[in-house]
Formats: sequence, C-alpha cells, structure tokens
Amino acid sequence: MELQDKLKLKIDNLNKPKGSLGRLEELAFQIGMVQQTLSPTLQHPVHLLFGADHGIEREHVSVSPRCITWQQMENFTRGGGGVNMFCRQHGFELRLIDVGVDHDLSAFPAIINRKVAPHGTANFLHEAAMTEEQCQQALGIGCEQVDAAFAKGCNIISIGEMGIANTSPSSIWMSLLLDLPLEQCVGAGAGLNDEGIRHKLDVLRRSVENMQKTNVPAGNDDGVRYLLRYFGGFEMVAAVGAMLRAADLRMLVLVDGFIMSACALIASRLQPSFLDVAIFAHCGDESGHKLMLDGMGVKPLLSLGLRLGEGTGALCAYPIVESAVRMINEMGNFEDNKITKYF
Amino acid sequence: MELQDKLKLKIDNLNKPKGSLGRLEELAFQIGMVQQTLSPTLQHPVHLLFGADHGIEREHVSVSPRCITWQQMENFTRGGGGVNMFCRQHGFELRLIDVGVDHDLSAFPAIINRKVAPHGTANFLHEAAMTEEQCQQALGIGCEQVDAAFAKGCNIISIGEMGIANTSPSSIWMSLLLDLPLEQCVGAGAGLNDEGIRHKLDVLRRSVENMQKTNVPAGNDDGVRYLLRYFGGFEMVAAVGAMLRAADLRMLVLVDGFIMSACALIASRLQPSFLDVAIFAHCGDESGHKLMLDGMGVKPLLSLGLRLGEGTGALCAYPIVESAVRMINEMGNFEDNKITKYF
Repeated sequence: MELQDKLKLKIDNLNKPKGSLGRLEELAFQIGMVQQTLSPTLQHPVHLLFGADHGIEREHVSVSPRCITWQQMENFTRGGGGVNMFCRQHGFELRLIDVGVDHDLSAFPAIINRKVAPHGTANFLHEAAMTEEQCQQALGIGCEQVDAAFAKGCNIISIGEMGIANTSPSSIWMSLLLDLPLEQCVGAGAGLNDEGIRHKLDVLRRSVENMQKTNVPAGNDDGVRYLLRYFGGFEMVAAVGAMLRAADLRMLVLVDGFIMSACALIASRLQPSFLDVAIFAHCGDESGHKLMLDGMGVKPLLSLGLRLGEGTGALCAYPIVESAVRMINEMGNFEDNKITKYF
Repeated sequence: MELQDKLKLKIDNLNKPKGSLGRLEELAFQIGMVQQTLSPTLQHPVHLLFGADHGIEREHVSVSPRCITWQQMENFTRGGGGVNMFCRQHGFELRLIDVGVDHDLSAFPAIINRKVAPHGTANFLHEAAMTEEQCQQALGIGCEQVDAAFAKGCNIISIGEMGIANTSPSSIWMSLLLDLPLEQCVGAGAGLNDEGIRHKLDVLRRSVENMQKTNVPAGNDDGVRYLLRYFGGFEMVAAVGAMLRAADLRMLVLVDGFIMSACALIASRLQPSFLDVAIFAHCGDESGHKLMLDGMGVKPLLSLGLRLGEGTGALCAYPIVESAVRMINEMGNFEDNKITKYF
C-alpha cells in the first residue's frame, strides 16, 4: 500500500467519526506526506524574521515612516514585540536577520547582520529595486538561515518580516502573477485612509508601467525572477529563498499574512513543490489577502483579523498544527479501544 | 477613568498599529472586563465533560448507536479520545462526569458518578425528557463542578459533552429560541445521509408539536425553563448549570460547537450576563451552527471544520486566548520602547 493510502487509513480509523476533526485531519495527512511517515513530529521550531527597508517608502505609500523598521528590529531584541511573545508561547527560536535595514544595528548582537545594501532597496517607481547580484545574495541568505535551522534538527519554520512599505511590492506581485487588476490587490497596509490608498494605487500603477517599459526578460521563469528583483524587498527575497530551500529539505513552512503570502505565491511559481510544504496560517484583514489565497487555491487555518506582520499570524496557528500531529500520534483507534465502529 | 477606558488605552498603546492584533485585542478587552483588571491571567484551566444518554436516540435520529456514549466515556479514561490529547496539549484538568449514561461505569474511578437517572432521559417524542426535579438536579451538578474548579483556583473552564443524539435537542432549542424553521436548524450530526436527515427532521417536528399540546407554562423565563427540561439531555442541562454558575463567579467559559452553543443560547436567555464571560471557540460544520451564532450576535474564534464534540473545538481555541492574555501583559508599549508613535 502506498504511504498516502496508509496515512488516510490511519486517520480514518482513529476513534472519531470519519472527517470529524476537519482541518486537523487534512493537516496530519499533509505533514505525514511531507515527512514521509505515519508518525510525524514537530522538532525545534524556528521563526526567521527578516528586516529591510524599501526605496518605494520614499513615495509615501505607507502610513508608517521608515524609521519604524529599525526601531522595531531593536525592540524585538528586547522581547517586547508581538513576535516575541508568540515565540515564547509556542517555543520557537527567534532569529532576527538584518538584510538591509536603513540603520546601523551592529550594536545589537541578537540581530544577525546580513545587509545586502546599507540603506535598503532602490525606489522601484524609477528603477529595479535590486540588481541580479543583490537578488541572488538575498535568496542565499534565506537558504543559509534554513540550512542553519535544519542543522539544529528543525523541521518546521515560520517566517516573518519587518519592512515599512512592504505591502506595496506584495500587491504588485499579486496583481501581475494572478493577473488581477491592481485596485483589487491594494489595501490599507498598517492603516492608510482612502486618500492614502488612492495615492498608493497611483504610485504602484506608475511603477508597473515603468517596469513594463524596461527590457523584461522572455520566458516564464525568467519573467518571475525579474519581478522578484524588480519589486522585492531584501527581506521578501530572503523569505522566498528560505521557502525554496525549505521545500528542497522537506521542511514545513508556516506562511503568515499578506506579505508572506505574496512571497509564497512567487516561490510557488519558481518551485511548485513549495506548496506541498506550505501551511497557510492566517487570512488577514488586508484587502485582497483572501483573493490571493483563493488564487493559489489554498485555505488558511485562522482568520483573526491580524495585520501586524512580523509573522504573528503564522505563530498563532502553530498550536493547531501541533494538535494535528497529536491527533495522528496519540489518538486511539476503534480496534485498540474496542469501540463499535459505526461507519 | 473607568476600567473599560483604561483597558482600551492600554491595548491601543501596545507597540503595534491600533487594532492590528484583531480578535486578540477584543479578547484581551473582554477578559480584562470579566476579571476587572488591566493584567488578566488564566489559571488552572478545567475541562468539564458531561456524559448522558437520550431517550430520543430510540427514534434513530443519529447515525451512531447509544452504546457509543458509554464506550467513549470509558475510552476517555484511557486517554485515547480527542478530548484527552487536547487537554494534555493545553494543560487542562479533565473531569469526566456521568450524569446519566445508560451503562454502569462505576468500575472507572476517573468517571465521577452523578447519574440523574440510570438509563438517561425519557423520549421527548412522547413526553418531557426529564422532570422538574431531575432538571434541578442536573443544573446543580453543573454548578457543583464549577464550584469545585473555582475552589482550586480555576478561572477558565471549557465544557464538552458525550451523548449520542444530542444534536436533536440542540436543533429544537435553536429553532424555538431563535424562532427559525426547524429545517434550518437540523443537520447531519455525526454523519447522517439525506434520508436520515429527513427522518430526523420529521421526528423533531412531531416532538415539538407534541410538546406544544402540553401545558406550556406562561411567561418567558418559565417557557425557557420548560424547554430546558422538555428536550434537554442531562449532560446539556448540567452544562447550562455550569455556564450559569461560571457567569455568577465571573469565570471565563470556552463554548464548543453546535451542542454547547445551543446550551449557551438557553443559558443566555436564563441569564444574559453569561454572554459576558463566554468565548465562542469554534464554528463547526453542523448545518445551522453559523446561523445560531449569528442569532446570538457572537463571532467564533476558529472555523476548522470540527464536528467531533467532546469540547474539542473549545480546547483548540485555548492558545488563542492565551495569546490575547500574553499580548496585554507582555507586549511593550510605544513609550517604554521609544518607538515613534505613528498614529
């Protein structure tokens, strides 16, 4: 019998009406397939938080100023951020990685210095956010972090981001990759008003027009790679690199909200098997997030109205994943427990 | 300043965009109000699982036979049920209470014997499920269990049930209390097919007609009390008693799926302040559950397609409640962390 049939049989025979643990049963099946076992485990969970600044922030597309990026990165070293408390709650090792925050953070040993550029990306209203070399470097940083986690025995990671203005590139990726009008992909971010959203939409529309005037490489994969470096933030490209590496290593990836879903979208275009290891944790309030998840054909576990970023939605879903693993390992079955199997 | 204003201010000043932790912020506010403090805690969580059998099961309204009730109660003592693993995961003390399971469970010391009647309730197709005295006794058992938990320092309980056929009385309570046609309130339970659902609907419709021919006491509260004893299972009435007592003691109550929501509905009619302490944990797949929650004007935390009962949905939501409490206690604020307050 194939593993997938054995997994299905094991889950169906647990002492509960078939299917009555809903999403937990689907998750247990997915995790068993990823780990190629009937008795999956979750080991040494690691949260990777990549931080970087964005050139597009100069166009006032965000309600928050760029200094929030470095201030929050520092704050995470003090344990007072949203991400810190959920890492503590669920036993995640938190790794803070500076891939291009526009500030000197070298005084904070807890922040891993991997700056691709000291002041963040270029402004994609006028030019590509990064060079091909920088893109390669940022992808490599994501890989390296996943490799380091893997070497410690980690088999599940979650990924978060800190980068003021990073809903903007996310909206553009979503629009171009899912072929949706930009206005369906642009939302309030951390709290723009209607006028702010109109301005953001205008800036993003002009950015896309300007990109289309450049020499877009031919071919699907090349095209995707071009979008990655033209609009991406360093923290987002590092996240994509981490996702691709996790897919290679068959590690589970908890995908957070709007920005990480956009990274997952682009990762899945570069390597479709990424979706096998991805667990979509949370559908946030950002307009278009549900549309993006629908576009990928995936269902989030939670919908709690979170829109903080940092990976907080991914972390909040972790105990549900743990419940699924407990179910398949700890729950008795009808035969062992001498219970009448009623269907 | 009133506590509610202080709570709102504290939550708004945590270092995150206002409202960006969504439901967690609402939960933290609710819990602070219930406990009358700016620094709420969760102490010694207890899961009460009441089990009993139903006379209406004789009418074949359920896909599962009545023997499943006692078999599962025994199984819970061995740790192999859905409820066991989630109690272990989230550190709940599990209390199993037999309020009228149609089987001698005295060989199991882990099952607290509080049988109201040795074979469960009477068949409400023909007569009231229980007498007024039995109803009072079952309510008292719920109270007593909550008092025992409170005495140990518990300030949050969840409640589950085991009682084959108990979606039937739940549907009737929902229909009569929310004034909705029965067909919108009746679903598949643990797995009925279409013919089974039609039969169940027919039995329940005739049961309601027969009840209406009896001498229904006048007055709203009297009417609700009459519905409680006419259709309720002992495990459901005990759950209602537990809910009412928890409301008195200002203890939080995690409300599980369809059956516990029906108990919460009737509890809220008997004592509206119950809704202050209630946290609706999960919207299950049972047809009508969402309609019932909407009817009460409440929003569930999770929607994972669970339909196992036992309180599993309530338990799965516990870490979200913990996250809310961590948020208000552990997250830094803008002033402490010298972060630019951007709106």
